[in-house]
Amino acid sequence: MHEDGCRRVVITGVEPEIEAGRFPIKRTEGERVCVEADVFADGHDAISCRALYRREEDALWSAAPMHFLANDRWRGEFTVDKLGRYRYTVEGWVDHFKSWRRDMEMRMAADTDADVDYLTGAMLVRAAAERSQDSDAALLTRWADGLAAEKDPALRRTIALDQALSQVMDRNPDRTRATRYGRELAVTVDPAIARFGAWYEFFPRSCSPEPGRHGTFADAEERLEYVARMGFDIVYLPPIHPIGCTHRKGRNNSVKAAPDDTGSPWAIGSAEGGHKSVHPALGTLDDFRRFAGRAREHGLQVALDLAFQCAPDHPYVTEHPEWFRRRPDGSVQYAENPPKKYQDIFPFDFETPDWRRLWDELLSVVLFWVEQGVRVFRVDNPHTKPLPMWEWLIGEAKRRYPDLIFLAEAFTRPKILYGLAKLGFTQSYNYFPWRNSKWELMEYFNELTKTEVREYCRPNLWPNTPDILTEYLQHGGRPAFLSRLILAATLGASYGIYGPPFELCENTPLKPGSEEYLNSEKYEIRHWELDQPGSLRDFITRVNRIRRENPALHGDWSLRFHDVDNDHLIAYTKHAATDGSRFGNLILTIVNLDPHRTHGGWLDLPLLELGIDTRRPYQVHELISDARYFWQGARNYVEVDPNTVPAQIFRIRRHIRSEREFEYFM
Amino acid sequence: MHEDGCRRVVITGVEPEIEAGRFPIKRTEGERVCVEADVFADGHDAISCRALYRREEDALWSAAPMHFLANDRWRGEFTVDKLGRYRYTVEGWVDHFKSWRRDMEMRMAADTDADVDYLTGAMLVRAAAERSQDSDAALLTRWADGLAAEKDPALRRTIALDQALSQVMDRNPDRTRATRYGRELAVTVDPAIARFGAWYEFFPRSCSPEPGRHGTFADAEERLEYVARMGFDIVYLPPIHPIGCTHRKGRNNSVKAAPDDTGSPWAIGSAEGGHKSVHPALGTLDDFRRFAGRAREHGLQVALDLAFQCAPDHPYVTEHPEWFRRRPDGSVQYAENPPKKYQDIFPFDFETPDWRRLWDELLSVVLFWVEQGVRVFRVDNPHTKPLPMWEWLIGEAKRRYPDLIFLAEAFTRPKILYGLAKLGFTQSYNYFPWRNSKWELMEYFNELTKTEVREYCRPNLWPNTPDILTEYLQHGGRPAFLSRLILAATLGASYGIYGPPFELCENTPLKPGSEEYLNSEKYEIRHWELDQPGSLRDFITRVNRIRRENPALHGDWSLRFHDVDNDHLIAYTKHAATDGSRFGNLILTIVNLDPHRTHGGWLDLPLLELGIDTRRPYQVHELISDARYFWQGARNYVEVDPNTVPAQIFRIRRHIRSEREFEYFM
Repeated sequence: MHEDGCRRVVITGVEPEIEAGRFPIKRTEGERVCVEADVFADGHDAISCRALYRREEDALWSAAPMHFLANDRWRGEFTVDKLGRYRYTVEGWVDHFKSWRRDMEMRMAADTDADVDYLTGAMLVRAAAERSQDSDAALLTRWADGLAAEKDPALRRTIALDQALSQVMDRNPDRTRATRYGRELAVTVDPAIARFGAWYEFFPRSCSPEPGRHGTFADAEERLEYVARMGFDIVYLPPIHPIGCTHRKGRNNSVKAAPDDTGSPWAIGSAEGGHKSVHPALGTLDDFRRFAGRAREHGLQVALDLAFQCAPDHPYVTEHPEWFRRRPDGSVQYAENPPKKYQDIFPFDFETPDWRRLWDELLSVVLFWVEQGVRVFRVDNPHTKPLPMWEWLIGEAKRRYPDLIFLAEAFTRPKILYGLAKLGFTQSYNYFPWRNSKWELMEYFNELTKTEVREYCRPNLWPNTPDILTEYLQHGGRPAFLSRLILAATLGASYGIYGPPFELCENTPLKPGSEEYLNSEKYEIRHWELDQPGSLRDFITRVNRIRRENPALHGDWSLRFHDVDNDHLIAYTKHAATDGSRFGNLILTIVNLDPHRTHGGWLDLPLLELGIDTRRPYQVHELISDARYFWQGARNYVEVDPNTVPAQIFRIRRHIRSEREFEYFM
Repeated sequence: MHEDGCRRVVITGVEPEIEAGRFPIKRTEGERVCVEADVFADGHDAISCRALYRREEDALWSAAPMHFLANDRWRGEFTVDKLGRYRYTVEGWVDHFKSWRRDMEMRMAADTDADVDYLTGAMLVRAAAERSQDSDAALLTRWADGLAAEKDPALRRTIALDQALSQVMDRNPDRTRATRYGRELAVTVDPAIARFGAWYEFFPRSCSPEPGRHGTFADAEERLEYVARMGFDIVYLPPIHPIGCTHRKGRNNSVKAAPDDTGSPWAIGSAEGGHKSVHPALGTLDDFRRFAGRAREHGLQVALDLAFQCAPDHPYVTEHPEWFRRRPDGSVQYAENPPKKYQDIFPFDFETPDWRRLWDELLSVVLFWVEQGVRVFRVDNPHTKPLPMWEWLIGEAKRRYPDLIFLAEAFTRPKILYGLAKLGFTQSYNYFPWRNSKWELMEYFNELTKTEVREYCRPNLWPNTPDILTEYLQHGGRPAFLSRLILAATLGASYGIYGPPFELCENTPLKPGSEEYLNSEKYEIRHWELDQPGSLRDFITRVNRIRRENPALHGDWSLRFHDVDNDHLIAYTKHAATDGSRFGNLILTIVNLDPHRTHGGWLDLPLLELGIDTRRPYQVHELISDARYFWQGARNYVEVDPNTVPAQIFRIRRHIRSEREFEYFM
């Protein structure tokens, strides 16, 4: 039998809730959590409810009132203003005073309010007085006396319906029979840069000013100003560890390396050390720390690559032979995706009986770099390591350092991509590189921003990576680079590029049909001429400035697509509250997805829903060209020529001043 | 840290699953449970999985294999063939042999299969031999030897890909690192009549052959043949207990009863007894038992009404004063929905400190009638009693008697209606009486039969009840009664009518705008002339026979609406497998929703999906008129005249014999 059968309220359908509370939702510092629930009881009694929340380490709950929406659904909100983990749940109770007051209104309307009804109310108010403290007790006692004894019927009615009485009763409710929702749900609160940031990936070894010389951290320091001036927030470096020699890959991924080939940074480990060492050709650990410090001076965070795999000459292979799988001939199992063989890479055998020590060691790698000042990690192929390992490792790391950020390079099937996001990855690479048509982009970004997915998966949009030179970029020329940049930077509050190939519009694939770069930096040192006249550097600078200046672009949830009667043009708005106005900052982006031809079309904006006065013209300020236009009404013609700029980013200013607002009119 | 970090498989998105397993799904004896889940692991390894199920009282699991669908989704099925509760869950594991075999196929295709690869396979097979028993061990050892030592490369390849080897490996998997889904989900298995049955409600006290005399159980016995001949399965009686005298309601719900007024059967309890007593005017408990026995002889089950409320003179009121709420003036709180007062009814105070004894007493009421042979209960206004009480009471009752059926008269808001269904009610009244237009019917029945709702809520469709004479019936004349009957009987595998008013097309409301019957049987004894020429008795008989003879109509899940280009015509099919053919029994119903005018329209049937050969004509057999037509192709014209019969029920016979099938052609 139930512990307390008198708890009549039922709470269900709580949102957000990921897999019945198995995983936390995600927020950044200062964001709000909006909680909804179905809350109801039997019969006609009124109910009240509230959202409860606390930091995980605190014992006491705070409460946020929930208000009734419709169809037994209630909503409440609270703010998470500290890093780490929060808990939240919902509580509801039968509110006899609220029922009584509602009934009294109906009785009065029907003129059937009787003495006994007022006495019932007095009883409820007196009970509240006994529960309450200080001044409330005195107030309530006076109201109770009035309800019980007031002789003037009109005055007695006034007392019964007194809003002040309701308010004081609301803060002294009888919750002895409240129902608490069966689960305490969790929120992970990350730093703001987990939500909004621009990433720039580059290879330090290609930073030498002298062609052919191996770049160093000192050279990379010189590159920082270039990156910072473009307006990026994070510089991400491919692995900086010693590179294996055995089965080293040569240029363009050739199986046989030439003696001077530098190998792939992802083939980690040699006699010079493993995941906690720095490649001697780049410098020392001190050099790395100095690089990271210089980055901070430029307002940049350094992101490192976590690639949990070993070159055959990684020290682990001899120190921990049990962490690798042996084949029946005694050799170590290399990575394989038959018929392809990757003999330069030994994957860990996560089914090893020694898995606990392996997990501990991997965590220690993360903590080692955290101790060097690194807070951001880009995780290589997380989907090829067990999901329970990641959940544990990220949990342990963030328990110690709640400001850590883990970006999952989970280019894999959707359930696994989302599974990794749920278990703790802060951000996720995703299918953006391959979403090119309007319909694809709309469908995918509605999934990312309008469904439960947004509660746990933060997309980070990359038009290119060292592994991905899309066909769109290969064939679309410079306009393709511009439009993919704008899509990434405006659809995604977090986005990144792999440079300098991106800003230099490098678009030659290894071979037709391949997404690999020809002469990929993965396998060789490149020397980049950054001052080419065609560089997108200034354009990127402008776009990043637009991002910083417009809060609408600092989050993804407000994304909304709009109708344009041309399938080559995609249009969407994002908005953010400023100075208390919900749509204070409103940004409309229009991109021509066809890199070859000018397209025009009629754009339809839902003005009322965007908070725009339909009767007056409004100003749209195109932020790339700095041009201003007056638009009128919901339907306006737009045209985009890819050969100038394949996109327009409008700040919509809803209010246009007129002469009536000049001072002399006031 | 995890207990076993080597469990790499992740299981999520299990369906069906109600509120994270908080509530069971429902099935009837012999039905199948189809379980789906997202099951995946890191990396490239193949996985296998299975559904596990057991009766709740059994310790051992049975297993049903799950097969891969797409997008990491797997499906398996099992049958629940015994009454009571079952449990089910999902288990998945990394299947190294399956991975190996897949990889070997690719290696062979690329001609890169090497000796060491066969040795790896031999190792896996030998390990399986050690796990396995009897003949499998010997077989596997022989295969392992072949893989390890076979010198003929072609033969060695044949061994590796031997389907028989795969099969034997499949039944000897290595599940030491299997992942079990985190929850054991429940199934409540009810008798078949919980899914398929026709109900008939009537008042025994109106069964006297002499007008004016109070009918008895003996009179009601005489009515049973009439009901059975119409083809009903369940006779449901309003409360049969002593009726209160204090504040008794008179005819047409008048506040003052005349001395000869018999009162409402729902005002339960008087000096003559309460919920475990029989109204003396109806007879004795023995008489009731004889009535129930006669009903069984007619193939009818008796359903009783559970109305947990008391007349002011119910013995509980004096024996258990603590079960009722006192007002400040010392009087007992009567039922009230301000400004309406129901002074003839005292609700229980479920917030009483004595709630445990109250709950026990209510359960004892159910068990008392179960001991008299009653297995079916129609529960009056369950939404006005606490949901936790019902969950406990139904759970306790069905634990003792798993064949019990509780029909919830939950005419309340949708979340509460569904909440009651989830917590254990076997069937639910619903919004069918007020769904009249084609769009409303389609939307509502798609919600009931195509969403998760169907897993826990079994609709029982009533065109009328003693409380509900809909406007549609009031104004639509005889065609309205016919069409609502056919909708109820074909949309709902479970349906019921309140007779004789239904078959006699009684349609006069208490007053305009009211859904109450004039001279309602709730407040007076009525005498019904059953042999009126206009009676729908024969029509109902025909419809119930069509229901019995066509398995398509024995369930609701196969319901599918079809396009007709006239909004007054609604068309839908249901189907059932017979003799192993999925669409063996296929019933198409077309109803004219306009009771006043003939309507025609073009009907579109998705022939391929219904298993109909698009190239040949097919026969449709109209089962009400017994007419047969030949149709050809997907598009056919239908016309329904409400003044003959406002509906057509076709059995579609997909196969039309031709002369080529006569014996002399064979």
